[in-house]
Amino acid sequence: MDFRVVIMAGGAGTRFWPVSRKDKPKQFLPIVSKKTMIEETIDRLSPQVPLSSIYTIANPEKTDIIKKLLPDLQNENLLIEPIGKNTAPSLVLATARIYLQNPKAILAALPADHLIKDSPLFLQKLKAAATAASSGDCLVTFGIPPLYPATGYGYIQFSAENPSYSLDEPFYTVREFKEKPEHKQAEAFLKEGNYFWNSGMFIWQADVFAQKLERFAPDMFSYWIKILDALKAADETQILSLFKEIPSTSIDYALMERAEGVLMARGDFGWSDVGAWSSLADIWTQDEAGNAIKGESLILDSQNCLVNNPSKLTALIGVKDIIVVDTEDALLIAHKSQDQKVKDVVEALKKRKKDKYV
Amino acid sequence: MDFRVVIMAGGAGTRFWPVSRKDKPKQFLPIVSKKTMIEETIDRLSPQVPLSSIYTIANPEKTDIIKKLLPDLQNENLLIEPIGKNTAPSLVLATARIYLQNPKAILAALPADHLIKDSPLFLQKLKAAATAASSGDCLVTFGIPPLYPATGYGYIQFSAENPSYSLDEPFYTVREFKEKPEHKQAEAFLKEGNYFWNSGMFIWQADVFAQKLERFAPDMFSYWIKILDALKAADETQILSLFKEIPSTSIDYALMERAEGVLMARGDFGWSDVGAWSSLADIWTQDEAGNAIKGESLILDSQNCLVNNPSKLTALIGVKDIIVVDTEDALLIAHKSQDQKVKDVVEALKKRKKDKYV
Repeated sequence: MDFRVVIMAGGAGTRFWPVSRKDKPKQFLPIVSKKTMIEETIDRLSPQVPLSSIYTIANPEKTDIIKKLLPDLQNENLLIEPIGKNTAPSLVLATARIYLQNPKAILAALPADHLIKDSPLFLQKLKAAATAASSGDCLVTFGIPPLYPATGYGYIQFSAENPSYSLDEPFYTVREFKEKPEHKQAEAFLKEGNYFWNSGMFIWQADVFAQKLERFAPDMFSYWIKILDALKAADETQILSLFKEIPSTSIDYALMERAEGVLMARGDFGWSDVGAWSSLADIWTQDEAGNAIKGESLILDSQNCLVNNPSKLTALIGVKDIIVVDTEDALLIAHKSQDQKVKDVVEALKKRKKDKYV
Repeated sequence: MDFRVVIMAGGAGTRFWPVSRKDKPKQFLPIVSKKTMIEETIDRLSPQVPLSSIYTIANPEKTDIIKKLLPDLQNENLLIEPIGKNTAPSLVLATARIYLQNPKAILAALPADHLIKDSPLFLQKLKAAATAASSGDCLVTFGIPPLYPATGYGYIQFSAENPSYSLDEPFYTVREFKEKPEHKQAEAFLKEGNYFWNSGMFIWQADVFAQKLERFAPDMFSYWIKILDALKAADETQILSLFKEIPSTSIDYALMERAEGVLMARGDFGWSDVGAWSSLADIWTQDEAGNAIKGESLILDSQNCLVNNPSKLTALIGVKDIIVVDTEDALLIAHKSQDQKVKDVVEALKKRKKDKYV
């Protein structure tokens, strides 16, 4: 099987401000471990996928940092989307590039900034998913068994009965992709049992992807055709023109939600999208009082705090559920329950023209 | 009247850590305004007391910084206690120095690190206190009308009836100095009405001070005699020897609590000892949500916080009653109700041999 992986590395990401900045989004930061998340993503694949079969795709502004972090990646594997335009244009371009080499190639599209704790299990399931994708007329995705009624993720409703099997792994027929729900609806989803979180990881055979586009996303398929032509002609100007026009939509919205023949495997391999500072509390080592600290610290009567301040001493006295992130020019203090508002801080800074902090 | 002021500048002070450090205690920091507290203390006196009548007293390690901050102060007015040993030895030495110049000189002993909001009223009352001290056999002090049942201050119990008057200012006979009380007792003090906070400000005539020492503090008086002799002989080695022996006690404990003939005036001139970070919340300008911020800031849903971070941007999200103090090598996050534990942090750092942060 000709198996390739496309790492989607174009995300902007403001939720890890003040560590993440415009030119350093989450995937290029050592947030979970001492390695950056994109390095972790590649390391995770290495037992099974050679570097020559791994691609990154991102807008040109990110080329330098990707080359610096991944010096062993061949230039031809560093795909460039001329303008950052969400996942649909990005994956149309990446799949078209691979399709021209081999229409039967299987391609896994993986975000550059997710955490997976059980790598061996992930690789085993990825192999099963690739096998499923190669054996028929289907698009494959991983659904994450929900841990709580999250309102920050989309959900995948699937038929629990009569899964098909690849390499002993069950694959369930997807009934519907659901947008991020309200809390009550999320609770109902969890009660039902057959609603999993949408992980944003997809596996397909290049020609099957094209067929599904043609049938379920004709507008996007017209761009597929034009992009294929431009790639064949090596006409980068034409690709830029097409990217100026192409709608900025997610692959979920453009294709997955509309397509028939989508299969889902259980992504029960310790997945986290590491979506905010508070998500690190469960990933970093905690002390007995639930404090997760990066940097030297002295803690009095404080519980469940998260501190990222690697270059300084941090003293905590009598505080609970507080996130502290210190950098050279900006300091964030947030209540854990409200760290989704970090992006609002970045927006407010932009509005106030304080661009040096963005 | 020969009126002199002795500014007690020897305090160590750990309660404004991490801004205050071993070599930079509170009196040398611009905590309340853009000037250091010792400069503010001298500025406050300037309309009435010429610089030639103002003395500082501190241990030798502080000489350089005092000279730097107060370049116009004559060297002979910069008194040096060879070893920092609390206020009794310090004021015995300072009063002895002035006594040798003029036994009838009136001396006001004032801490270098207190805030007084109404300077004109303070100067008016200081003049009345000096007049009271010059007219008889008494030691004079200011009592602060208590704002709340503080357990962090000593109290002065006084006779509210039949005050004596100097320059139309009533002076009350002190019945007893009370050590820092428990909360219940403090509440009882406030209910009684005739218990004021001990401000640590004292006014006396040099020879009256000596007489009171002789009668009520004979042990300390023996040092007074020996220090006088050593000063007459300009024998600094002898003064050092005496300071090695002399008990390290406060003037409150050594003399004021024991003496008869102590008068108290109402110190209702907006006094604060600025004893902890939280005390600055009422002194600095606050926004509508009660946040007092030094430095650039961006605040979302946060109330009653105090931030000292002049060189950076601070973003607050959803936090209440939090103190944030950032410095080059250490960051403090404390709940306002527990900022008296800042000194425990400093103690803990000493124990852990992290002297670079102390």
